[in-house]
Amino acid sequence: MKLFEVGELSLVEKLRKKFKKNVPGLILGIGDDAAVIRSADGLTVITSDMMVQDVHFNLSWTTAYQLGFKLVSVNVSDIYAMGARPHFLLINFAAHKDTDAAFFDQFYDGIEEALHVYNLSLIGGDVVSSDHVVLSASVIGSAIHTVSRKGARIGDKIYVTGQIGDASCGLALMKKIGMPVVIEKGIESKLPLEKDIIVPLIKRHLMPEARNPEQYAPSATAMIDISDGLFIDLFRLCRESGVGANIYKERIPVSQELIAASQYLGMSPDTLITGGEDYELLFTAPENSAFDACCIGEIAKSGMKIIDKKGKTHNLEARGYRHFDA
Amino acid sequence: MKLFEVGELSLVEKLRKKFKKNVPGLILGIGDDAAVIRSADGLTVITSDMMVQDVHFNLSWTTAYQLGFKLVSVNVSDIYAMGARPHFLLINFAAHKDTDAAFFDQFYDGIEEALHVYNLSLIGGDVVSSDHVVLSASVIGSAIHTVSRKGARIGDKIYVTGQIGDASCGLALMKKIGMPVVIEKGIESKLPLEKDIIVPLIKRHLMPEARNPEQYAPSATAMIDISDGLFIDLFRLCRESGVGANIYKERIPVSQELIAASQYLGMSPDTLITGGEDYELLFTAPENSAFDACCIGEIAKSGMKIIDKKGKTHNLEARGYRHFDA
Repeated sequence: MKLFEVGELSLVEKLRKKFKKNVPGLILGIGDDAAVIRSADGLTVITSDMMVQDVHFNLSWTTAYQLGFKLVSVNVSDIYAMGARPHFLLINFAAHKDTDAAFFDQFYDGIEEALHVYNLSLIGGDVVSSDHVVLSASVIGSAIHTVSRKGARIGDKIYVTGQIGDASCGLALMKKIGMPVVIEKGIESKLPLEKDIIVPLIKRHLMPEARNPEQYAPSATAMIDISDGLFIDLFRLCRESGVGANIYKERIPVSQELIAASQYLGMSPDTLITGGEDYELLFTAPENSAFDACCIGEIAKSGMKIIDKKGKTHNLEARGYRHFDA
Repeated sequence: MKLFEVGELSLVEKLRKKFKKNVPGLILGIGDDAAVIRSADGLTVITSDMMVQDVHFNLSWTTAYQLGFKLVSVNVSDIYAMGARPHFLLINFAAHKDTDAAFFDQFYDGIEEALHVYNLSLIGGDVVSSDHVVLSASVIGSAIHTVSRKGARIGDKIYVTGQIGDASCGLALMKKIGMPVVIEKGIESKLPLEKDIIVPLIKRHLMPEARNPEQYAPSATAMIDISDGLFIDLFRLCRESGVGANIYKERIPVSQELIAASQYLGMSPDTLITGGEDYELLFTAPENSAFDACCIGEIAKSGMKIIDKKGKTHNLEARGYRHFDA
């Protein structure tokens, strides 16, 4: 049997069972956005993610600077999804020995920019040679209390931050543009749509900023970051919590820019909102909680349903990005 | 300018300067075997390393099990080199989606074996698709006091644990054998030399065990693990400590197995001892310290010298493995 026949979710589930054990001080191991360890100071939260050329990014339209920034955001997003604060970063960088030294410099300039945004410090890692560009990062954070994927209760409202699908729409646009847009230095490229429409979308794909959970974490009962797609990540949260969900399609926040670009792209907004890489937070909280996030549905006893604008109910498919799926 | 024209040491030095800053709680950042953070419990020690197919390992003669075991050892060795104890492990695994699922299982069986050996827990990581096998690991450990690369004083003796060059000799043998030797299950392959000679050597390359520093750390003034080669790592320790070294060539511990195999290979033992991947500890300590390690020289004011058996002094070259070197 091949890995793509097993699928990412089953592989992770297998690891979780294989390595499940009670360890003094370990609060949460494999299977959430980050691991949680108890320390004398409170809770230490740690995550590690990898990004591979031609799987996670395409150097035909991504600058090294954007890549560095995004690698940090992706990892910080996992720390934020636990309701924690990031502090320290380790970066492993692999590239071909013939790579231009400017690529290396710009990659670490992007890292530096992200350090400022997230108030992080780079403290270590590795620099090695490789055929392709492969990157991994680990972030260590802390929290007094963490919010896991477990904990959603029947009747809780389901919230998302920001707007869904912009990153996916930005990716579709970059595939059309097919060359780097140096958004970090002001844009000089010719773009196929108005700047006001296209820039927020491609920026969300190329240099996403992770969503700080400070205002949500105190009331959240369960939380996850949307990395692989709104529905697949909702599915994960519900499975961990042992509950179901009803989602109101019309309530899913979609930007005006996405609507405009989807017409140009000839793609349905419905497809774009399941595309993943949103790096927004998806969380549950009791009704009438006060914060700046959008309520898209509620937790049910079981089942995953989506209700359209006519009030018709459909089964929700856990669509999104999965490594190793055929 | 290309990365190979800059060289690994300059790249790391560049990062160290770029990201040097005073951060509350950060004792040691980029440039040692691991980073050190102060916590209420004592010191938290953290490291991350990457291993890339066809750069760090060759799947023509390495089993997935051996790879899993070695990935953990390489990272634990960095924690040990700080005089610290490893506790928690995160693994990032990337492989082609057509990879056999058994490869995945055996890789994590090798990880599991290493968890037992080092008393570690796997708490997280990532599983992604990629053209080649790329692995990275992060290990979090703790210590009351750490031993850095700085701290060697003039007159200190220089020690190494174990025997030097066995791993490099094992690699040369595996290149000749050209197919996996399943040492983890008892050996059935035909080997070109007697089992007693060949097995310890190839095992040191395929499944090295990191050296526990417990008996050395209390007296050590500076310490590093030998990953890229005895001399290049000695050079790093001396540069950090701002000192020189005199090494007595005859005192470098070399195994009988290496001597026998070097004749078969037609390679000089001198070449093999600079080959790297020893994962032994190289450290300095005051004279007359009592432990089971081999004194190979002493710290001098400056210069890196090697004294041969006739008493002749030569300049020591910092030979060993460097990524991105031409």
